[in-house]
Amino acid sequence: MLVVKKFGGTSVADKERIMNVAKRCIRDYQSGNDVVVVLSAMGKQTDVLIDLAKDINPKPPKRAMDMLLTTGEQTSVALMEMAMAALGVPAVSLNGFQVAMHTTSAYGNARLKRIDTERIRHELDQRKIVIVTGFQGVNKYDDYTTLGRGGSDTTAVALAAALHADACEIYTDVEGVYTADPRYVKNARKLKEITYDEMLDLATLGAGVLHNRSVELAKKYGVQLVVRSSLSEAEGTVVKEDVKVERMLVSGVAADKNVTRVSLVGIKDEPGMAFRVFDALAKENINVDMILQSIGREGTKDITFTVPRDMTDETLKAIDKVKDSLKIQDVTTNTAVSKVSVVGAGMMSNPGVAAKMFECLYNSHININMISTSEIRVTVLINEADTEKAMNAVHDMFELED
Amino acid sequence: MLVVKKFGGTSVADKERIMNVAKRCIRDYQSGNDVVVVLSAMGKQTDVLIDLAKDINPKPPKRAMDMLLTTGEQTSVALMEMAMAALGVPAVSLNGFQVAMHTTSAYGNARLKRIDTERIRHELDQRKIVIVTGFQGVNKYDDYTTLGRGGSDTTAVALAAALHADACEIYTDVEGVYTADPRYVKNARKLKEITYDEMLDLATLGAGVLHNRSVELAKKYGVQLVVRSSLSEAEGTVVKEDVKVERMLVSGVAADKNVTRVSLVGIKDEPGMAFRVFDALAKENINVDMILQSIGREGTKDITFTVPRDMTDETLKAIDKVKDSLKIQDVTTNTAVSKVSVVGAGMMSNPGVAAKMFECLYNSHININMISTSEIRVTVLINEADTEKAMNAVHDMFELED
Repeated sequence: MLVVKKFGGTSVADKERIMNVAKRCIRDYQSGNDVVVVLSAMGKQTDVLIDLAKDINPKPPKRAMDMLLTTGEQTSVALMEMAMAALGVPAVSLNGFQVAMHTTSAYGNARLKRIDTERIRHELDQRKIVIVTGFQGVNKYDDYTTLGRGGSDTTAVALAAALHADACEIYTDVEGVYTADPRYVKNARKLKEITYDEMLDLATLGAGVLHNRSVELAKKYGVQLVVRSSLSEAEGTVVKEDVKVERMLVSGVAADKNVTRVSLVGIKDEPGMAFRVFDALAKENINVDMILQSIGREGTKDITFTVPRDMTDETLKAIDKVKDSLKIQDVTTNTAVSKVSVVGAGMMSNPGVAAKMFECLYNSHININMISTSEIRVTVLINEADTEKAMNAVHDMFELED
Repeated sequence: MLVVKKFGGTSVADKERIMNVAKRCIRDYQSGNDVVVVLSAMGKQTDVLIDLAKDINPKPPKRAMDMLLTTGEQTSVALMEMAMAALGVPAVSLNGFQVAMHTTSAYGNARLKRIDTERIRHELDQRKIVIVTGFQGVNKYDDYTTLGRGGSDTTAVALAAALHADACEIYTDVEGVYTADPRYVKNARKLKEITYDEMLDLATLGAGVLHNRSVELAKKYGVQLVVRSSLSEAEGTVVKEDVKVERMLVSGVAADKNVTRVSLVGIKDEPGMAFRVFDALAKENINVDMILQSIGREGTKDITFTVPRDMTDETLKAIDKVKDSLKIQDVTTNTAVSKVSVVGAGMMSNPGVAAKMFECLYNSHININMISTSEIRVTVLINEADTEKAMNAVHDMFELED
């Protein structure tokens, strides 16, 4: 069996944890499996490097930034090779160049295009554990690139797909995917299984366990993922296409506080206005989520939408540029909001979920600002102060603790 | 004009020094030159990485060690690219893979075999400053290698040769090559010029400004070197084949305290004994320097030689293995010795130099343990405590301060 195992930065943050990961991989190797290990940079190393860079150049060229950041994972994999050698097991560390991981040329946010598997297969044939740098690749100019947030998960999934691995295990600091964030919802329960689509909605909505790009890739290539803890032996959660257990109506509740609500008041009611607003935002790479358009007074309309809270300034700047030409009378923002969502593949055939959720929030005296739904998800925008109360109320309502 | 400029670790140890090096290179670039910059790892970064490795594995695999250490120079060049961008000049950082620097496969002590110049020339044609990692390369397995001590100097010289550069400037923390180490000899004078052969003897003898491998390479390819300070505008010392200034009898005095004297007493006087001793040492990669063989008592002989002091234990272990078969009666060592040498191309036609040196040491009541000479060098082994006294006496005797 060929297994790809991915460990994040906290799992390799110091000597003890590196040895712990090495032992865990060796156990798998000694049971006869071929093992490929994907690592992130140690602990806060990436942040340290970013600080170092910004001290020299507040706006460092992205190409140079990737050249700098890729040293982080290279350090991790080299040390892991040493750890495994100390434990008497042959291992080989490889970086994005050596593999090679071909990506698009967008520095800082590249996408994997193709992975050469020759070198990895050759090393596996020698019965070595192969340790690969996550997060990084090389573009057509022979320059280092990085994959952006959650990049190491993507590397692991892409490697598993390219190598036709039998399993892809994503190790993290939680024991799997939960029905809600256990820090906020006491009764949160670990899921045994979840579908790609549910996981995608949870990932996008800020559950933070897996990055959505890696889940998309896993779905596309049918790579079965297991999310589990690097600190315990617990079973974890399997992410796959078809979940065999009895279908729950709702699989989980997620919350995202990185939200700002922006309202454009009194836009002239002409065709193409919404397009011009969102085009201006798209040009600045601002990701707009919930959108609401309503009729205002005297032949005008209002447009309300949400953006990531850390993009609030950029959003207002972009709006400012088109404010006059679109005759926007007023722009208001509210940063004290959050998104709470319920996700479940079972929802598709059960139209009552949204109503049940609204009723539950009403009973808890929580005001709903905006609503957005997909086939397997209902999201509401509420006041940030109500987030935990809402999560617990919804979690109880759908009896997710069982 | 195409200029290769090499800066060591202390020259890029922090933000201020990185900006300083960037400005210095940019000045050259803005005067119309093509500039290639070779950098070492920042400050003590290499030592930090070695400590990190040894904490995990006291005997880390050499391949993994090189994988780890090469992140050091990659960090330097990435930050330098950012520094130059901050100063508004287009630059590109390249590592050993990207260039590519092809080496032999000996991890930790590889030798450069071939340098591809295509990428560098392409970037220079775009009028970019090209920043290259020193010390590292890639072997036929596509693995990182490092060049061993003084490796960044070697990278710079090899690049200058491959690119047919008009100049190769080695920046260091001293202003050039001196007639003696200014820390020990007050009257030491900076040399304007020196030949490759003199520099080679000085490098080997521990003057520490340039590594001998880089000087050998410069001599082989006729690369004219300039050794100068990264902290001042002083002219530095030119190292070249033919020095035009009036030939001094002696160019400099060097001392080396990394010496142990080893004596093998009462070896059976048969042919092949010396061979077997030094063969045993060569197999352990122990570099033997001065050798003295003398007739002992009752058909035996004594062999005395020097080794680097940090190889004393290895030497004794290697001797121990052949001690019985060679019937060595006794092994003695003295670690309180040092080598003092005078070097000068002018010596070749002036046989009196050795005698003059011995006379001078005699007048200073310094006892000579062993003597070794080459065409352009006289070396004596003395008690370590006499080192500075001997250097000053010889420096005065040959009137090097003038």
